[in-house]
Amino acid sequence: MLFNKLKKVEVFAPASIGNVACGFDVFGLALEYPGDKVIVRWRNKPGVVITAITGDNGQLPVDAEKNTAGVSVIRFLKHIECQRGIEIELHKMMPIGSGLGSSSASTVASVFAANVLAGKPLTRENLLPFALQGEKVACGSAHADNAAACLYGGFILVRSYNPLDIISIPIPAGLYCALIYPKIEILTRDARKLLPDAISLKTGIMQWANTAGLVAGFMKPDFDLIRRSLQDVVAEPARSRLIPGFQEIKQAALDAGALGSSFSGSGPSIFALCKNKSDAYQSAMAMQAVLAPKNIGCDLFITRINRKGPRIIKSR
Amino acid sequence: MLFNKLKKVEVFAPASIGNVACGFDVFGLALEYPGDKVIVRWRNKPGVVITAITGDNGQLPVDAEKNTAGVSVIRFLKHIECQRGIEIELHKMMPIGSGLGSSSASTVASVFAANVLAGKPLTRENLLPFALQGEKVACGSAHADNAAACLYGGFILVRSYNPLDIISIPIPAGLYCALIYPKIEILTRDARKLLPDAISLKTGIMQWANTAGLVAGFMKPDFDLIRRSLQDVVAEPARSRLIPGFQEIKQAALDAGALGSSFSGSGPSIFALCKNKSDAYQSAMAMQAVLAPKNIGCDLFITRINRKGPRIIKSR
Repeated sequence: MLFNKLKKVEVFAPASIGNVACGFDVFGLALEYPGDKVIVRWRNKPGVVITAITGDNGQLPVDAEKNTAGVSVIRFLKHIECQRGIEIELHKMMPIGSGLGSSSASTVASVFAANVLAGKPLTRENLLPFALQGEKVACGSAHADNAAACLYGGFILVRSYNPLDIISIPIPAGLYCALIYPKIEILTRDARKLLPDAISLKTGIMQWANTAGLVAGFMKPDFDLIRRSLQDVVAEPARSRLIPGFQEIKQAALDAGALGSSFSGSGPSIFALCKNKSDAYQSAMAMQAVLAPKNIGCDLFITRINRKGPRIIKSR
Repeated sequence: MLFNKLKKVEVFAPASIGNVACGFDVFGLALEYPGDKVIVRWRNKPGVVITAITGDNGQLPVDAEKNTAGVSVIRFLKHIECQRGIEIELHKMMPIGSGLGSSSASTVASVFAANVLAGKPLTRENLLPFALQGEKVACGSAHADNAAACLYGGFILVRSYNPLDIISIPIPAGLYCALIYPKIEILTRDARKLLPDAISLKTGIMQWANTAGLVAGFMKPDFDLIRRSLQDVVAEPARSRLIPGFQEIKQAALDAGALGSSFSGSGPSIFALCKNKSDAYQSAMAMQAVLAPKNIGCDLFITRINRKGPRIIKSR
């Protein structure tokens, strides 16, 4: 394996939107903000330890074998046959359980940082399986939409899981996102139980027309086609009742100029994709105005699309 | 309405592939060859008549009200409030019931020619509903994939049927197609009966990942992504038993270098999409070699992609 002289690497990895309306289990979109920060250092002995976790209100396990970030680094070190150990500091700077790819941000930041610390023995693309192994610990299953978006940046298509086939899709300049995170708890596994095992052929046809339309809309680019294609006829109808006022919140965003709006992943966060910052600001305000009288606390985010994946904040 | 001085217009409209593997009911691809030729002339009295049909072995109705080409022109003339009548000569230069969009070629050629004759009162895009009304006579239902590909040329996505939303997707230069038409009869309505009413969510996810992948592959362009995305997990498994030796024929095309292969529409024609003419030639030969010992007659076509839709051969 390669060695270099780095002792410490600090990395930020972004939040992401899973599904992006029509692309259930296949589309992901990385956000510039929020995200997680991870610091990795070499240890004097083998093994991976987590030395600190902040911003999680004590929710995350410190045992590296049970922690999503810990597991991905353990598997990574084993793969590169590294005898040295690594210390991880995890700084959660985004809400856990929000549907914004919180566990992906932690795993991707950790394994990306560990790879830099080790002298980049693997390419960025080859880090994805380790991030997914970390995700599996957190979610019970490894869905690549958030992790791949977080690692690659921009808009990604998971064309296939077996073999893993991730496609980066160019997106128009100026794209912005408004997000509202209503502070209610939805577990991914519970949200998945609401999904139908089967869908009608007619529903399927609508969904695969829209995934094709969204890719064409991004690549042309054609904002009106993006708008028409951002429709989910599979997961959203089954899950919308999980969030009080979802339809109203979504409609408020659309009325305020958003191109489209749906859950991020299995929720509860709701995203509104917009063609510029001003529309995103208006959409965020409109979504908040619907939620406020319901006495549900919320976080708001107005952000650019992250186009580069994780970034090194510091290394020495 | 507009009048111009034309007395006679002769138009060629192309054959097309429906579905294009993963895009069941939503993708269509126009071919340079074969296709149908239509000649339209003003009559001295109102009404639409079909004065000649060639190349159909007497299979098509001469009664304009029952003929796919006749119906589309009748509806078109009514829409533009034209009091004059039109004579139609229909020259079938492609096999009927081959799954290559034969009825679309006839309707699109007729309505396109009638629009030119009348001084182009409608845009190309606005002719589609009339072609679909003609299709409905022939097939019992109006599926826009063939008709839209024939009218627009190139590769099209029917993003929505209601409202009708047709998207032209750019495709790479050099794309070629090999087609084999085994002379067995499959009625579209019978082939549709074989389709499941419902599909598993897992199957749906694969299909909408591949429609998104195929659009990205065409637009990037990325031939290997096109290859990986040309997979139909919905219609092909249900219908492949309709054609003796389908799997072998498909495999022979792939082994000969085709990017992908499946039914055109509901078959029996099988297409092989190729990145150049030489691969298309090899694929056609390989497909024919599989079919020949089975004592099933066949037609072979090796053709470029039509990128412009119908073309005016002559007008005066």
